[in-house]
Amino acid sequence: MYSSLNTNGNVAAFETGPVSGRFAAVYSEVQNSRIDHALPLPSVLRNPFKVVEGPPSSAAGNPDEIAKLFPNLFGQPSAMLVPNEVDSLRSDLKLKIGVVLSGGQAPGGHNVISGIFDYLQDRAKGSILYGFRGGPAGIMKCKYIELNADYIYPYRNQGGFDMICSGRDKIETPEQFKQAEETAVKLDLDGLVVIGGDDSNTNACLLAENFRGKNLKTRVIGCPKTIDGDLKCKEVPTSFGFDTACKIYAEMIGNVMIDARSTGKYYHFVRLMGRAASHITLECALQTHPNITIIGEEVAAKKQTLKNVTDYMVDVICKRAELGYNYGVILIPEGLIDFIPEVQQLIAELNEILAHDVVDEDGIWKKKLTNQSLKLFEFLPQAIQEQLMLERDPHGNVQVAKIETEKMLIQMVETELEKRKQEGSYKGHFKGQSHFFGYEGRCGLPTNFDASYCYALGYGAAALLHSGKTGLISSVGNLGAPVEEWTVGGTALTSLMDVERRHGKFKPVIKKAMVELEGAPFKKFASVREDWALKNCYISPGPIQFVGPSSNAVSHTLLLELGAQA
Amino acid sequence: MYSSLNTNGNVAAFETGPVSGRFAAVYSEVQNSRIDHALPLPSVLRNPFKVVEGPPSSAAGNPDEIAKLFPNLFGQPSAMLVPNEVDSLRSDLKLKIGVVLSGGQAPGGHNVISGIFDYLQDRAKGSILYGFRGGPAGIMKCKYIELNADYIYPYRNQGGFDMICSGRDKIETPEQFKQAEETAVKLDLDGLVVIGGDDSNTNACLLAENFRGKNLKTRVIGCPKTIDGDLKCKEVPTSFGFDTACKIYAEMIGNVMIDARSTGKYYHFVRLMGRAASHITLECALQTHPNITIIGEEVAAKKQTLKNVTDYMVDVICKRAELGYNYGVILIPEGLIDFIPEVQQLIAELNEILAHDVVDEDGIWKKKLTNQSLKLFEFLPQAIQEQLMLERDPHGNVQVAKIETEKMLIQMVETELEKRKQEGSYKGHFKGQSHFFGYEGRCGLPTNFDASYCYALGYGAAALLHSGKTGLISSVGNLGAPVEEWTVGGTALTSLMDVERRHGKFKPVIKKAMVELEGAPFKKFASVREDWALKNCYISPGPIQFVGPSSNAVSHTLLLELGAQA
Repeated sequence: MYSSLNTNGNVAAFETGPVSGRFAAVYSEVQNSRIDHALPLPSVLRNPFKVVEGPPSSAAGNPDEIAKLFPNLFGQPSAMLVPNEVDSLRSDLKLKIGVVLSGGQAPGGHNVISGIFDYLQDRAKGSILYGFRGGPAGIMKCKYIELNADYIYPYRNQGGFDMICSGRDKIETPEQFKQAEETAVKLDLDGLVVIGGDDSNTNACLLAENFRGKNLKTRVIGCPKTIDGDLKCKEVPTSFGFDTACKIYAEMIGNVMIDARSTGKYYHFVRLMGRAASHITLECALQTHPNITIIGEEVAAKKQTLKNVTDYMVDVICKRAELGYNYGVILIPEGLIDFIPEVQQLIAELNEILAHDVVDEDGIWKKKLTNQSLKLFEFLPQAIQEQLMLERDPHGNVQVAKIETEKMLIQMVETELEKRKQEGSYKGHFKGQSHFFGYEGRCGLPTNFDASYCYALGYGAAALLHSGKTGLISSVGNLGAPVEEWTVGGTALTSLMDVERRHGKFKPVIKKAMVELEGAPFKKFASVREDWALKNCYISPGPIQFVGPSSNAVSHTLLLELGAQA
Repeated sequence: MYSSLNTNGNVAAFETGPVSGRFAAVYSEVQNSRIDHALPLPSVLRNPFKVVEGPPSSAAGNPDEIAKLFPNLFGQPSAMLVPNEVDSLRSDLKLKIGVVLSGGQAPGGHNVISGIFDYLQDRAKGSILYGFRGGPAGIMKCKYIELNADYIYPYRNQGGFDMICSGRDKIETPEQFKQAEETAVKLDLDGLVVIGGDDSNTNACLLAENFRGKNLKTRVIGCPKTIDGDLKCKEVPTSFGFDTACKIYAEMIGNVMIDARSTGKYYHFVRLMGRAASHITLECALQTHPNITIIGEEVAAKKQTLKNVTDYMVDVICKRAELGYNYGVILIPEGLIDFIPEVQQLIAELNEILAHDVVDEDGIWKKKLTNQSLKLFEFLPQAIQEQLMLERDPHGNVQVAKIETEKMLIQMVETELEKRKQEGSYKGHFKGQSHFFGYEGRCGLPTNFDASYCYALGYGAAALLHSGKTGLISSVGNLGAPVEEWTVGGTALTSLMDVERRHGKFKPVIKKAMVELEGAPFKKFASVREDWALKNCYISPGPIQFVGPSSNAVSHTLLLELGAQA
């Protein structure tokens, strides 16, 4: 029987015996075929290796503050696995390792766990792997399951996080750190692998620092997970899940493009998941060649207003109408409005007001807004105003995911086109169709790339723990080459960190990797977007294939970044 | 250069020379690999054949009325291609054939055209194939392109209708029939293939009747196209596009299911395209096993109210909460609200009122509604009221596609759950996420099934024209067997017809094939849905594969219907 976990880590009903995962689940033919898909390992992991260290590290910003926050870990060198005549690690060590999934789903998470498990089987026989249930809360509440070969098997190369489920709790307060310590001691943990995004890896590092400070033997290694693609650096070229999610969205976008061209009468406004950074939108654009693509980072850098963005769209739509095209496809990043300085200012003011004041129905609270913000607030369509006032996320931020930016932009574009029609400068016809692609991409079957990448990340993370490392993030590199040639190691988490003001306090954070306007992917896009705007250069990537053509393709973003480095 | 057509059949700009289709289009690796995918033909089409006739046919309903409307065609026998020692048709006949795409896109349309073209190349060398541009308007305005091998090649096995584009115009008035005649005469057409849904095939039959009545030599053959799956009968087991579209939606639904199970906190309300019938929703349910599936035909048969539907959902949600599951996936057919008798009544009244009266802002028009309808109208959320008043489709009907039923139901479920919470009968937590899957599925790369099926439909349609048939719909059968063994023939379009009241007049219509509550697919679903409701039996079909596992799978609906017939 399948057993399920909710986000509190409680095992749901429908268990008739011990937890048995997907044993009895009915699989589709494709799911079944993926279970036995053989996972290649980088050659360094298939042969004897030793761990070598690099030079001391610093921080991404404010190293003095980071040094204060991580007195035991700051400055750690990175680690690299290199071939050796004999294995340098004792294979008779029996390790007790925990693993936790943290935050939103990303395709490949199950393969990270499979990689850890297989490493222990291969190189530290007799070790035990615990899966903490329902995210970090599982660590705090000591809710776990011992993972064995039979339990893990049906999850190999499968999407989702349901093997042990995930959660968004954070280990933050002294009491919570105490709980984590108790679990580490109770289970006699040698190590813990935290699979998560920037926040979760920050948390992993705090945990590593705390365990070391308390002289606990438990080491902590992070793994870079997020479909958003905003957790990356030189040593961690991409986060897992980005490849699969983008390919799923690009399939849909490609289909919608062919539909637009066949029908000839719709502008499809596609909002794509990706709250903080616009990597997903940029990657999907590079895969599909839409007529208009808005990149949040560019909007922010150019200090554009909502009106500027609308005018850009309307200009392209008018030019296309003159060419006889009254259709098109427009990509918009989920977090767009958060990139627009005037909106950012408004949201910042709203965050402050909502944190401290009562929002009265008569709107007296609005007097606390600056003039510019009040003007913008009242300029927004009613529905958007309401969405801005919705409840906050756990960090106290506006939930941009709930704002239907694509519908707001359709309304604004319609209004402006109507104006130009009356001025005589537009003679076309416009019909907008809105789409949001998000949840469809987080739990798809991982692509061959994500499947292999995750397996290597997990296998490597276990090797790092085996060698006694802590406070590192599992780092697999040389990803443009065949898997055989990938490099494996770990990067000091403190080297990715900066400090940031949250809830009025300085906190360590892993600097999010934003779309770089001087980076190769954006420059490639910028060099061709005018062609894409007026000519129809649509590409339809089609559904992800697991065998045959394109089945081993790597994302454009990764390839371009690797090319620029080379 | 790629050249595009708008729905009026006008060639858009960006042409630098003769129309050149997708010649210069950049293709993805998967698109490219599909172009040269070899299309198998049923053995009857690969060898010499003759055409045999069945017994005289009748009509699906009101045969006397149909006989009056189609004096030249009524009663025609069906035709079947059977192996013969020698080819019975003259290969030295040089035919002039036109083809037109009518109505909404469906994956495989380009392969129908490829099939017609290849038939003419193989069996009537020297024939000419004209593609009418932008749908039936292309016939009326004589906008066409002569299709040759180079032009057609890049469209083989590709999604979309952009080879010649489609349109929703109908040939209805005496003037329009006159225009069609003029085109037929001008181009000296021996035949015309109309690729379309129920309306378009009805139109094809009217055209065939008219041409025969006028003693024109132009014959007309229809082809069953619609992702909705509601154009089928014994001889036409399925319409093309249904297979691909359902598999695309099922991929997304499967992904969302794994997400729901991993996250544990969302109810995903998925509305699926399919205006009149719920075949898509039923097929997607059979492929993925959601917790709740609403089938419009059942709602109508049981005369359920909106409150009944809401209560059914809420009952399941409450039971799941008791079991610890505060998540789930719910499928809703696009046309749901049109199936609910009380809503149908309201829409009928609105259609009447809007056709004849002015809708004043003060709402005086509402007094024309019956009490029951007024009550329901005012019970609906404001947004839905507004959507009901939106502009009509060309048939004068409410545009159900514009009604966001999934959001309406989330609101209604929330309200009812809140009530039960206060009564103490519900202790769970509920968060709804809405999705609409529609445009993503109409233009995907056709599955192997749709690719082969369409090719055979087109090849067969040309054979029927070659043999002098008219007023038939291309019919390919025995679809559960390998392509080799498929049967090929034509079915009298009048035999699919009934009369219906539209705009206050009787008109011939092809009876839409609705989900049969006594049919095998629904009965299968009904026998397992209670298990699906409370246990989590999710199946994730994964992305469509073109080679390897599942690449030749056939839809559950078709297999179950064939099984029940066998």
